[in-house]
Amino acid sequence: MTADTDTLDDLFDAHDLPGLERWVADHPPHEVADELARADGVRAVLLFRLLDKDRALTVFEELDPPDQHKVLSELRGEAFQDVVEEMDPDDRARLLGEAPAKFARQVLAGLSPRKRSMTAALLGYPDGSVGRYMSPETVALRQRRTAGEALEVVRERGADAETVYTLPVTDDQRRFVGVVSLRDVVLSDPQRPVTELLKEDYPVVEATDQAEDAARLMQEANVLALPVVDSENRVLGLLTIDDALEVIEAADTEDIARQAAAAPWSGHYMSASVVQLARSRVVWLLLLIVAATFTVNVLQFFEDSLTAVTALALFIPLLTGAGGNAGSQAATATVRALAVGEVRTRDLFRVAWRESRVGLLLGAALGAVGLLIGSLLVDVPVATTVALSLIVICSWAATVGATMPLLAKRLGIDPAVISAPLVTTLVDATGLLIYFLIAHAVLGV
Amino acid sequence: MTADTDTLDDLFDAHDLPGLERWVADHPPHEVADELARADGVRAVLLFRLLDKDRALTVFEELDPPDQHKVLSELRGEAFQDVVEEMDPDDRARLLGEAPAKFARQVLAGLSPRKRSMTAALLGYPDGSVGRYMSPETVALRQRRTAGEALEVVRERGADAETVYTLPVTDDQRRFVGVVSLRDVVLSDPQRPVTELLKEDYPVVEATDQAEDAARLMQEANVLALPVVDSENRVLGLLTIDDALEVIEAADTEDIARQAAAAPWSGHYMSASVVQLARSRVVWLLLLIVAATFTVNVLQFFEDSLTAVTALALFIPLLTGAGGNAGSQAATATVRALAVGEVRTRDLFRVAWRESRVGLLLGAALGAVGLLIGSLLVDVPVATTVALSLIVICSWAATVGATMPLLAKRLGIDPAVISAPLVTTLVDATGLLIYFLIAHAVLGV
Repeated sequence: MTADTDTLDDLFDAHDLPGLERWVADHPPHEVADELARADGVRAVLLFRLLDKDRALTVFEELDPPDQHKVLSELRGEAFQDVVEEMDPDDRARLLGEAPAKFARQVLAGLSPRKRSMTAALLGYPDGSVGRYMSPETVALRQRRTAGEALEVVRERGADAETVYTLPVTDDQRRFVGVVSLRDVVLSDPQRPVTELLKEDYPVVEATDQAEDAARLMQEANVLALPVVDSENRVLGLLTIDDALEVIEAADTEDIARQAAAAPWSGHYMSASVVQLARSRVVWLLLLIVAATFTVNVLQFFEDSLTAVTALALFIPLLTGAGGNAGSQAATATVRALAVGEVRTRDLFRVAWRESRVGLLLGAALGAVGLLIGSLLVDVPVATTVALSLIVICSWAATVGATMPLLAKRLGIDPAVISAPLVTTLVDATGLLIYFLIAHAVLGV
Repeated sequence: MTADTDTLDDLFDAHDLPGLERWVADHPPHEVADELARADGVRAVLLFRLLDKDRALTVFEELDPPDQHKVLSELRGEAFQDVVEEMDPDDRARLLGEAPAKFARQVLAGLSPRKRSMTAALLGYPDGSVGRYMSPETVALRQRRTAGEALEVVRERGADAETVYTLPVTDDQRRFVGVVSLRDVVLSDPQRPVTELLKEDYPVVEATDQAEDAARLMQEANVLALPVVDSENRVLGLLTIDDALEVIEAADTEDIARQAAAAPWSGHYMSASVVQLARSRVVWLLLLIVAATFTVNVLQFFEDSLTAVTALALFIPLLTGAGGNAGSQAATATVRALAVGEVRTRDLFRVAWRESRVGLLLGAALGAVGLLIGSLLVDVPVATTVALSLIVICSWAATVGATMPLLAKRLGIDPAVISAPLVTTLVDATGLLIYFLIAHAVLGV
């Protein structure tokens, strides 16, 4: 594959159009999409226009909204209309939700009236809600149908639907009563009423619910599509598994970025500019360096001890490092456990009690190593100070690291904001305090 | 929901069996599974036995292998046989692959001969390979069929299959030629030959391929099931999207744990013991503290400078903290970009060049703040040293942090092993070297 894409750069450099056309025809849509996302606007559109119409649409659907915008904003006239007209309504709503207003108006103006109203309806839901990701084009069944009739309904109306494998069933007031699967419809006797195939305790969400919660629910409940209803329980559409996967991947990428104290960037890493990357990281770094000023204050307070025993300064990075690592481990574990639903806020005290003991065990192991390193490099009294500090700092760091995400969630703050660097910075200052208090007790400085 | 589960604890404490029975009947399977995973073995089995048979199996399928093992090892006789006999072959193989050998033999002995051989076959594939996750029970079609005949085949043989929505198609030598979807089979004219509905460039994997790669491929290519073939292109089964989701969730949890320098723990966070948690974290902490000994060496080397200007010591945690944060941000960004396929190893130099400039921008911003903090708390010469150090350290840290995961991957090491703490520890020692060299140049110490 490496050889292939080196060739792609070569083909561009040589302006070899027939070669490029062969390249896009020979590669699967998701690989072409990846190259489009990595390329600049001009090259991306050149590649895009070399695709035949059906493949172009498939490739376009694989792109993230910022990259879709990159391609579309270089397209003109008919090519532009063709693409926006053929997109799924939920994909179109998401693209327009993220694009500049002028561009969004231009796209909406080019649509047929039916598609325009469908897209506008989806755009009415808040950013990040299920409504932005659901497919409004579904095949719903009335509950009085038989399996055989249901199969006929699918045949008549299934062509436009995003999926026909999950069929919502409604009562006479068009209210949602459950779903049947196409599998059960196909496998059962055609005379059997749909109500006998009904899955009644099937999960369901409202269009205004958070898309991430809905996607995680689908993953937990192992379903391919989730019915979406309004506040009066009428079926609005389906959230399909491919859209749910996108939501989960984006949420995980966001959590991972936050864990490293960076603002999430929704586009492709290689298409982000240097300034965009710096902007996504700078705010947290500045906040953290201001917070780190406390470490300077703590050390200033103990400056006399430092002057008396300069050797104490030698272990500062080792101690803050160990405390930061123990705290990051605990914070990362609880942020993830919260995200996948294994821990809840009411577990706060159980988690704090567990992690303080985990930290104590870890501190004991590190303390032994610290005693050895300190004795070899300096002397036994300083080594003892370092070892005792490691035990207390690790236990403290693990407890703080694990409970901060839970406290944040109780206060309504996204727990992923409690990043490893934030925990590290807070543990640094308190860790130094612990170190110099222990030094005072052991060394009398 | 909080009220519900508080009640569950109350019900246990009151030994209220009818109440517990109502509780399990009233909650959806994935919520019951979550409570089973959180409970100890005795309570878990008590809850489990209160479920009716169909729901018990659904709940059991939602559990991770370590929790399945917890439940099964408390079950006896017929109840035990019922559960293992009804599991999907791929789930059973995965459970046995992780369970103690004695337990695995006991399970295999209790199976019918057909199921035993199917499970043993899956167990023959290496841990983490597609073979361990695929469903061998699929409906494959011969390519000479019509759509109408295909629907009949699904009706006859679909009941045992894990999915019937993706149907692999084979030639007369039983070799894989492509897939048709049940949707196309249902929607098309019954007389139409299956070959006209065939998706020929559909992705396909071998059973020995890595399950994570296959799962990410499914996500990129937006498919519900991926055909699995042997080295001679004969169909062995299908990897379904629900199994792929599990693989991705586990891989992401593993990457996240590694990013915090902890060994991944595959079970439920709340069911892990204190010793298990400590064990998963201790090895990395020990390695990192040994690596941190370099920081002690660097400081010892510059001990005269420290004695001459004690104020230099005050900024050590601030500088190592800032460098560590900038390095972690860059490392986390490239590890994630590698995992989702946005960056490849051949991008090494482009990434290094980008990140060094990102780091320079960030360093400039932090340097300005450092100049201010240093001037206010100490004096201008030390503040200048701190500011210049921040610029160089940030640029260096971002470059090292971003390129280390790519270098690791080139060397065949899992890039997620290049954790934020590892980057931080390495940047700590080199950052101190930069700091004291700049202090030497600026302050003449």
